[in-house]
Amino acid sequence: MAARLFYLTVLALSALGLMCVLFTVYWMQSWHGGFAWDGTIFTFNCHPVLMVAGMVVLYSAASLVYRLPQSWVGPKLPWKIAHASLHLMAFILTVLGLVAVFKYHNARKITNLYSLHSWLGITAVFLFACQWFLGFAVFLLPWASLWLRSLLKPVHVFFGASILSLAIASVISGINEKLFFSLKNATKPYSSLPGEAVFANSTGLLVVIFGLLVLYILQASSWKRPEVGVTTEGQPLLHERE
Amino acid sequence: MAARLFYLTVLALSALGLMCVLFTVYWMQSWHGGFAWDGTIFTFNCHPVLMVAGMVVLYSAASLVYRLPQSWVGPKLPWKIAHASLHLMAFILTVLGLVAVFKYHNARKITNLYSLHSWLGITAVFLFACQWFLGFAVFLLPWASLWLRSLLKPVHVFFGASILSLAIASVISGINEKLFFSLKNATKPYSSLPGEAVFANSTGLLVVIFGLLVLYILQASSWKRPEVGVTTEGQPLLHERE
Repeated sequence: MAARLFYLTVLALSALGLMCVLFTVYWMQSWHGGFAWDGTIFTFNCHPVLMVAGMVVLYSAASLVYRLPQSWVGPKLPWKIAHASLHLMAFILTVLGLVAVFKYHNARKITNLYSLHSWLGITAVFLFACQWFLGFAVFLLPWASLWLRSLLKPVHVFFGASILSLAIASVISGINEKLFFSLKNATKPYSSLPGEAVFANSTGLLVVIFGLLVLYILQASSWKRPEVGVTTEGQPLLHERE
Repeated sequence: MAARLFYLTVLALSALGLMCVLFTVYWMQSWHGGFAWDGTIFTFNCHPVLMVAGMVVLYSAASLVYRLPQSWVGPKLPWKIAHASLHLMAFILTVLGLVAVFKYHNARKITNLYSLHSWLGITAVFLFACQWFLGFAVFLLPWASLWLRSLLKPVHVFFGASILSLAIASVISGINEKLFFSLKNATKPYSSLPGEAVFANSTGLLVVIFGLLVLYILQASSWKRPEVGVTTEGQPLLHERE
């Protein structure tokens, strides 16, 4: 791929990811009064922002580390550490996002984990935790055999993309659910498409476009580390050279 | 891949797809009074069933036609016709699914296309229409040049998987939305997880599992038609031999 096109795409993707987060912040700030950590609705407002920032945008950035051509040459360990560290940061934001909604629900005596949104979201977070610990134990720590790494690599790659897909479906159902809640007794209901509805719906579509672009880059061969002597398609992402 | 594993997977996937449709039918039949085509809520009940059957299950079956090893040998035209015909059937079910919800909304004077679920869904259907007509014109009709086909193949494959992903996100947000609507004034609300909520949430998870399996098979190299003389990874799905 031409270097100019590559850097343009990286720039566009970064801008799109940043827009997803900023749009979510703006939605919560302008229509829902901003943020706090006291168990009130302002604590809940942290939930969508932390989830979009952690589980979608930072998760995507962490997943795309091996798509930088700089990672294709020299020792792989620093890039593995970057991949694991960025994912750990994404995971911490995600857990804080969960804490925000649980803290708000518990303070208001609202039941946790009943909607399909929450079932899907908690499944995504659980898989993310398993994926991180298994990835750390097998691919970063030096004790796993090459045989085990080769066996788990396609699984790791598949679950990486699947968790992002689940996160995007969770974000979409979450935005939809939040708008039905917050515009239930509004003078302009959701069905009359007030400013908040148009803005939050657009934020949802932005997250979907960002996610699809990331998933495309993750599977596109032109973005992958070229392998010496490749004769078949579908080489795993984390192919070991040592 | 071993033949036994292949046929076991096809069987499991077919059973899972059938379960997705049957679960949706059972949900609408047992908790919402069944089906009709008269503009009442029973017309709406056709919407989730037609969408899961058309836009998820039949769409997936149509997409997977080229993953059958029988399609890898001999002339490709019959398989192209099968691929296009199955997708056309999926599209007809999808349009009927749209008609069902519009008919119900119009009869009850409910606004159309305001929720994020509907924005995402209508985007998926619009892209599906574009994808079918472009696919028909370029890959099935004999007039497009090999150059144009090669250019559009990766686009066709990418949008094929993207439309399925959008459809799944639409189904999830749709089930979530429907449960908030239908259990709003129920004696046992959504948050107390009555039978309907557990059943419909589980149906949503089933659709997600089915969709992820289909997306996995679509991108897995071991499921693709082996190409003669392949030296790089990521060969397009619809590679022309003529």
